[in-house]
Amino acid sequence: MSFLANTPKPPYYAVIFSSTRTEGDNGYGAMSDKMVELAAQQPGFLGVESARGADGNGITVSYWESEEAILAWKEHALHQVAQRRGKSEWYSKYALRVAKVERDGLFEL
Amino acid sequence: MSFLANTPKPPYYAVIFSSTRTEGDNGYGAMSDKMVELAAQQPGFLGVESARGADGNGITVSYWESEEAILAWKEHALHQVAQRRGKSEWYSKYALRVAKVERDGLFEL
Repeated sequence: MSFLANTPKPPYYAVIFSSTRTEGDNGYGAMSDKMVELAAQQPGFLGVESARGADGNGITVSYWESEEAILAWKEHALHQVAQRRGKSEWYSKYALRVAKVERDGLFEL
Repeated sequence: MSFLANTPKPPYYAVIFSSTRTEGDNGYGAMSDKMVELAAQQPGFLGVESARGADGNGITVSYWESEEAILAWKEHALHQVAQRRGKSEWYSKYALRVAKVERDGLFEL
């Protein structure tokens, strides 16, 4: 899968999840992969981009057709389990932002 | 500086810049630091978050008060120089998305 999400023409929605990881894996890697796989199966999912540095700081941006699709994913039972473990085990802090993408461009150089 | 941007209450704007780096530094690190420093001095700048993995894929999200502030930064002379070098030397591909942040939350765990 290419790093850049192949999103459609705007408007669409972005969920920007910025986080700092705690020390150690503690099951994070496997759950992270599983959540990306599961998210990709949800109605309204458009793509996801993710990067994390060696300092433990990371950003994941997922793209969605609508706010309803974002809400449904937020409330997905398995995602809820992941969210709880994220708060208690995997992240020392995080920020979540929901934004409406108004314009974009993708450039292959 | 904390990793998470201390943004105000929405609405505000996010510029999501997702990119894949070419091999080697070639002056990228110094310019990247300089651009963050310069961006922080621009009117309407609210903060920036950035992460890049060992695979060369990275995401930088900068936050702004308005679309006018984003446009002014895009057209800043020194930023234009950096943009040109980015296209010719530092990135193999990138995507740029401008989005209006409608809701957010910051969590210290």
